[in-house]
Amino acid sequence: MRYPTHMPRATSTGPTLQQVAALAGVSLATASRVLHGSGGRTPASALVEKVTDAAAQLRYVAHAPAQSLASSRSTVVGLLVHDIADPYFAAIATGAMRVAREHDLMVLVANTFRDPGLEMDYLARLRAQRARAVLLAGSAFTDSSLTPSLSEFTSTGGRVVAIGTHGDAFDTIAPDNYGGGQLAATHLADLGHTTVGVITGPSTLATVSNRLGGFSSIMEPAAVAEADFTREGGRAAAMSLLQDRSLTAIFALNDLMAVGTLAALRDLGRHDVSVVGFDDLPVAVDVTPALTTIRLDLTDMGAKAMELVLANLPTGRTMEAPATLVVRASSMPVRPPR
Amino acid sequence: MRYPTHMPRATSTGPTLQQVAALAGVSLATASRVLHGSGGRTPASALVEKVTDAAAQLRYVAHAPAQSLASSRSTVVGLLVHDIADPYFAAIATGAMRVAREHDLMVLVANTFRDPGLEMDYLARLRAQRARAVLLAGSAFTDSSLTPSLSEFTSTGGRVVAIGTHGDAFDTIAPDNYGGGQLAATHLADLGHTTVGVITGPSTLATVSNRLGGFSSIMEPAAVAEADFTREGGRAAAMSLLQDRSLTAIFALNDLMAVGTLAALRDLGRHDVSVVGFDDLPVAVDVTPALTTIRLDLTDMGAKAMELVLANLPTGRTMEAPATLVVRASSMPVRPPR
Repeated sequence: MRYPTHMPRATSTGPTLQQVAALAGVSLATASRVLHGSGGRTPASALVEKVTDAAAQLRYVAHAPAQSLASSRSTVVGLLVHDIADPYFAAIATGAMRVAREHDLMVLVANTFRDPGLEMDYLARLRAQRARAVLLAGSAFTDSSLTPSLSEFTSTGGRVVAIGTHGDAFDTIAPDNYGGGQLAATHLADLGHTTVGVITGPSTLATVSNRLGGFSSIMEPAAVAEADFTREGGRAAAMSLLQDRSLTAIFALNDLMAVGTLAALRDLGRHDVSVVGFDDLPVAVDVTPALTTIRLDLTDMGAKAMELVLANLPTGRTMEAPATLVVRASSMPVRPPR
Repeated sequence: MRYPTHMPRATSTGPTLQQVAALAGVSLATASRVLHGSGGRTPASALVEKVTDAAAQLRYVAHAPAQSLASSRSTVVGLLVHDIADPYFAAIATGAMRVAREHDLMVLVANTFRDPGLEMDYLARLRAQRARAVLLAGSAFTDSSLTPSLSEFTSTGGRVVAIGTHGDAFDTIAPDNYGGGQLAATHLADLGHTTVGVITGPSTLATVSNRLGGFSSIMEPAAVAEADFTREGGRAAAMSLLQDRSLTAIFALNDLMAVGTLAALRDLGRHDVSVVGFDDLPVAVDVTPALTTIRLDLTDMGAKAMELVLANLPTGRTMEAPATLVVRASSMPVRPPR
């Protein structure tokens, strides 16, 4: 009973089984058979559809507990991502889909463009089709505008697993973004860098504040530029930062922006600036110089998120996903700026 | 009436409006109002849901034409892709989603792992939720196992747009894969290459036979290795091909495999072999040497596919998507093999 504003209405003064049966146009016995699993015969699938439709519409919650409603949910799991063209999300999706496929679940991916309104639309759509669960990848807004929509989803038996930070109300796969930021700062400090520019992502994302917070806990950034987590955004931000010739290194809060930074350095003909990224996307080994970065096992994070859905244990668990330093050619001992 | 095995059953001896009304538990007048748009009042959305559910289940097709059923379809468009982690599909998805968002449509992406069974499961799921359309990206199997599922989808008012080759029954965005293969061969021939290895993708894909066919129409490959359209697969295939020291160039049928080929050349310390890819993914400009490739405007292809859905014109149209040569550093005049 995590959402007291919703659950009491449904269980005490909420819709009755009679109302569900009436809306569905079936007998009380049929509604009970579908929603409570009572009676020996399995209702025809058309009846199951009608009754669960009506129950979802009225937000009817079966007593003791909502398990029988949950078991009549579909084999669909929704996966909400900010930007499917970002390989970060593609890697998470791949891990989730691999586990889903092993268990005959279907995954429907929705692209939210970081638009909370669109996220709510997709959540409503997934609820309407009785999706078994929704995975939120990169929905770690520091505000909580989505919480009511998510609570409605869980109040009808759906599960929510957040990848990233989303309060402690749901199952969470928590990448160690803060620790990763610390690793980046420590690595650059060890190489002698003291004037480091940082390229951040959208400031509303908890991922950004955590990565930046970890870095700043070890070393104060000499300059900060905000970009949008894309290669082009990173490139423009790097061009701006690099006008300050005292910077000897740049820490970009994701690999796409780090790749954009390498492109900016190439265009400027500068080979004296170290670059560290974050995520360890596949591209990191193919750029020149190969990118030093903070590695998250994104595919494994997606797989673990889907396993949490399947485990069907009480909600509210958090699984840590470690961040590790991967040293490649793009970081080197400090050289005096020219 | 493209699918005579389905449509006559539905229109001549198929279910009646009475049967739909009975299954939905509504009056004949209500069913008619929902399915034929007759009567002035707009039925409550719960009634619309029930009636369209029943109609879809019985595969009832409204007469003259199925337009009123189509107009009661949801705002969901399904997008089926082989592998969401492949940036080729991510770029197509981005274009489709951009247009969808401008028109308040939601896009649900499904990953088929190139498994026809899974494609059919997703099609059934999208049909059940009355998706307005399905976009098939990379479903260009040379066999036609999917055709019955797709015909069922269209027979209840849904639209199908194929990106790639899928017969001429549906709207099609047709990238010029054959012409692109010709461009690659002509470019390498112009540079003096006569012994070129080709790395193909899965042989069941029309994309592969078209790209390879175009190349072979200009120049017979000296050696062919099949891989799986991934970077690692391309790398292994290149390692195998490069044992033949007479090869002066490699044409990989997509950019991911071309990037794998560059990695193999780097590992072998060979800088005398030209590489040409296909697609012009974002990574092409960030690898070293930058990749010469055949460019498809993938984002535009995705956008055009969604525009075909919205245009709501008679089906069966084909829009060509041009392929162009982009010359970068990875292709160079032939040097005698060492």
